[in-house]
Amino acid sequence: MRKLVLSRVRDLVVNRRSDKRIIISCSCCRLAASSSTLLSRFLSSVSDPAAMPAPSEFTTAVTLDNINPKVLKCEYAVRGEIVSIAQRLQQELKMSPGAHPFDEILYCNIGNPQSLGQQPITFFREVLALCDHPAILDSPEAPSLFSSDSIQRAWQILDQIPGRATGAYSHSQGVKGLRDTIAAGIEARDGFPADPDDIFLTDGASPGVHMMMQLLVRSEQDGILCPIPQYPLYSASIALHGGTLVPYYLNESTGWGLEVSELKRQLDASRAKGITVRALVVINPGNPTGQVLAEDNQRDIVKFCKEEGLVLLADEVYQENVYVPEKEFHSFKKVARSLGYGDKDIALVSYQSVSKGYYGECGKRGGYMEVTGFAAEVKDQIYKLASVNLCSNIAGQILASLVMNPPKVGDESYESYSAEKDGILKSLARRAQMLEAAFNSLQGVTCNRAEGAMYLFPRIELPQKAIKAAEAANKAPDAFYCIRLLQATGIVFVPGSGFGQAPGTWHFRSTILPQEELIPAIIERLTEFHQSFMAEFSD
Amino acid sequence: MRKLVLSRVRDLVVNRRSDKRIIISCSCCRLAASSSTLLSRFLSSVSDPAAMPAPSEFTTAVTLDNINPKVLKCEYAVRGEIVSIAQRLQQELKMSPGAHPFDEILYCNIGNPQSLGQQPITFFREVLALCDHPAILDSPEAPSLFSSDSIQRAWQILDQIPGRATGAYSHSQGVKGLRDTIAAGIEARDGFPADPDDIFLTDGASPGVHMMMQLLVRSEQDGILCPIPQYPLYSASIALHGGTLVPYYLNESTGWGLEVSELKRQLDASRAKGITVRALVVINPGNPTGQVLAEDNQRDIVKFCKEEGLVLLADEVYQENVYVPEKEFHSFKKVARSLGYGDKDIALVSYQSVSKGYYGECGKRGGYMEVTGFAAEVKDQIYKLASVNLCSNIAGQILASLVMNPPKVGDESYESYSAEKDGILKSLARRAQMLEAAFNSLQGVTCNRAEGAMYLFPRIELPQKAIKAAEAANKAPDAFYCIRLLQATGIVFVPGSGFGQAPGTWHFRSTILPQEELIPAIIERLTEFHQSFMAEFSD
Repeated sequence: MRKLVLSRVRDLVVNRRSDKRIIISCSCCRLAASSSTLLSRFLSSVSDPAAMPAPSEFTTAVTLDNINPKVLKCEYAVRGEIVSIAQRLQQELKMSPGAHPFDEILYCNIGNPQSLGQQPITFFREVLALCDHPAILDSPEAPSLFSSDSIQRAWQILDQIPGRATGAYSHSQGVKGLRDTIAAGIEARDGFPADPDDIFLTDGASPGVHMMMQLLVRSEQDGILCPIPQYPLYSASIALHGGTLVPYYLNESTGWGLEVSELKRQLDASRAKGITVRALVVINPGNPTGQVLAEDNQRDIVKFCKEEGLVLLADEVYQENVYVPEKEFHSFKKVARSLGYGDKDIALVSYQSVSKGYYGECGKRGGYMEVTGFAAEVKDQIYKLASVNLCSNIAGQILASLVMNPPKVGDESYESYSAEKDGILKSLARRAQMLEAAFNSLQGVTCNRAEGAMYLFPRIELPQKAIKAAEAANKAPDAFYCIRLLQATGIVFVPGSGFGQAPGTWHFRSTILPQEELIPAIIERLTEFHQSFMAEFSD
Repeated sequence: MRKLVLSRVRDLVVNRRSDKRIIISCSCCRLAASSSTLLSRFLSSVSDPAAMPAPSEFTTAVTLDNINPKVLKCEYAVRGEIVSIAQRLQQELKMSPGAHPFDEILYCNIGNPQSLGQQPITFFREVLALCDHPAILDSPEAPSLFSSDSIQRAWQILDQIPGRATGAYSHSQGVKGLRDTIAAGIEARDGFPADPDDIFLTDGASPGVHMMMQLLVRSEQDGILCPIPQYPLYSASIALHGGTLVPYYLNESTGWGLEVSELKRQLDASRAKGITVRALVVINPGNPTGQVLAEDNQRDIVKFCKEEGLVLLADEVYQENVYVPEKEFHSFKKVARSLGYGDKDIALVSYQSVSKGYYGECGKRGGYMEVTGFAAEVKDQIYKLASVNLCSNIAGQILASLVMNPPKVGDESYESYSAEKDGILKSLARRAQMLEAAFNSLQGVTCNRAEGAMYLFPRIELPQKAIKAAEAANKAPDAFYCIRLLQATGIVFVPGSGFGQAPGTWHFRSTILPQEELIPAIIERLTEFHQSFMAEFSD
């Protein structure tokens, strides 16, 4: 299928001057979005000749025909077509206010809390500022500008960095002292030992995911089990490394349940096709689906990985984002160790990031992966991969250590820190509930509970007329809906087709991040749009 | 050859319990280092069973046999075996001081100025601290702690960031306002226009290099022309992306001259073998070789790329590091535009980093690439690659803008800034000269001038007896020399074989970064070691 699309795309490039239009319809649900997005980009290039000079105009002739086809294949919906349209609308609003029926673009496409007004945790920023410019520490003004524990913590961190040089490359896994702190934080969280030598600090979680894909994927005969719907970093990374995404479907009717029987079915089916399945990706709490796994479910998943010899890639970046009292986050490492499984039993990589949680420090690009259960010589290879980029940024490293070791009772900052943290998490829970209720009130829309993470992934039953109109516009039906929503309201949701979904179903993902006081107005705009959309396309 | 090594390595793993020793000698100079390093790692694993558990002990069975062979092939000498040995020695010194004939390890393996005591530029750190914790800006203490222009600059930068949110993901190419500043800095440097939409801010220069390799390399039939000696990021990245490194040799006898006739010869030879050469890497000022290209030489290189349809990947991260009055840095973009070549004539990527220059802010992981001469739809693909990792860290982005727009005459910080900058650059020039003279005074060692960058790459004529001893120890001769030097003095140089060198020649790379007052003692230790080494192995 992919090859077919690429060759047709090539035809399209060759034939573009004759203005031939080839409509590709594709029965493969998982790829529908990427192919159609790719195609729509081409079609928009075709209709705007300035955007696509003929290859011959460029001496170097680097063209879509001769770049790495894995790059072409890779798609990343959360910053894809819908965001390009939003950016264009924003530009138009800037140039001529009043050009659209809304004043601003509301970016609900990505978990980027501070872009929507969330304030950073004061203690974290105090420590970062002091580490950036340690000269302040010696000044008599410092105690009136900074809390005593931030000053103390900055000294402690600087003392962990050789030469106190926050401007030096660190060990490629990250500053040893900071890894010690993180390992202690993991131990405190799980009640099981953690080894600082297993920690690899990274610029956000993404580079760690790429590193493991690079290690494990040899060819398209290597498969990685990924949830559908999934966060498109995984499909993008697998595509870039030339592997095969082996989908397992989350069960929407049981609140996006992860069923081991489904894992087994998909694993066996892939193996029958000659695919060597190397790893299982689990995102918990779920992205884009927002569910929090139950501990006994996690135990079954761990046992499954052990039995089948799969590396468990545990995306645990939303570990602080749980909003319902009956659910609790358990790390997969804790679950594995509780079962008595040690390093020899299961290879497990746990991802954490400073971008999520209550801190939401996306721009700092801090994170880590804890890599356990790999033979020493394989871990050497992971180290080598880390070393090729020298190290992750030191401020991100420091922040990762702060997140895993925040102020404690008795520290000067503790009260204000706790108030900031609780304020954010409680507000997120309320926002999730408000949006969930609003989605469920829309005709043809059903939405599971947001137990955790930062997203809702409602399902939408679209009228046949809307599906046909989408087809005519060469869009996936949910992309068609999201683009119309954006054009009418300025709200940016990401079409479900960017995450994958069961064939014949349509969804969109919304973050729960707009500021609380704005949510009633957002719901009003959304409801109004939805009603008029459904009226326009009613069968 | 590579396949042969891998299969032999496999034999080695299989046969390790029977303790068979297979010595691999390899006539392929460029790969000698990587193969022998690989092998030596295996041999050391074999002799230390604890370091290498049998694969069967691990359920998951991720082994060197079944990971991505491109990862195995990739080597990164500047953080390779020599650094591992250094770290072990450092640990031993910590556990038992006096265990070795030196008190500390002197890391001259990597251009990491602040790890060796270089102080950061005050103005840059002031701005970073203020952007990290903008609450300080409003405090009455701010003017006594920060220069007025750092306060002004911080406000200006915060106003360029939507919502003043330094903790938010930015546009995937970087904050637009910061790209505007960088483009203006490039214009001021070159006298030719620069477009902020051509700037991609990156976490140091390395991710930008990987991105272009990912874009251009489809298979091992795609080649990238790289200097030999080269900075091993290039060989590592090409290996990881599955391409072929097409070497061109710098002419040591003309001060590491880059000859277009050699480029042409290697290009033609590769094409005759069916390789599609896609790009030419030029590192100017040179790493590890320290030469600064003359402008007419650059013109010839640009013409060559235009004629041959090659993308020019210009590593210009040492653009501020020029130490001789008769040489000056010219960007390749300026040279191309001076020739009248525009976007349609040459595809050119220029890399810059905050890690080098007089700032040396390696730990901040800031940098950018300026991407010109690519068709719009190809640039969209580069943008997509950038978007998969969301964005580079904002502090690094801010620092990149500061580096391209430092304090100007009249600003409060200007004088102290200039004094700090000049102090560092003049000291680097003196250190380069001192070390160059010292290397040239050693028996059998010749060293070209350090015109720029942060390195010297002396050539060493090793006695036959030393070469034989190295062979017996299964090391490249220059690696043997460097390990012995490290063990005797604590000084870490990187063997030339990690960078590539003309067959039958041996070198090592040293940074010029140790603090000036330490250099006489370093030279003394080095000289003493060298004399005793040469005496031990004299023929």
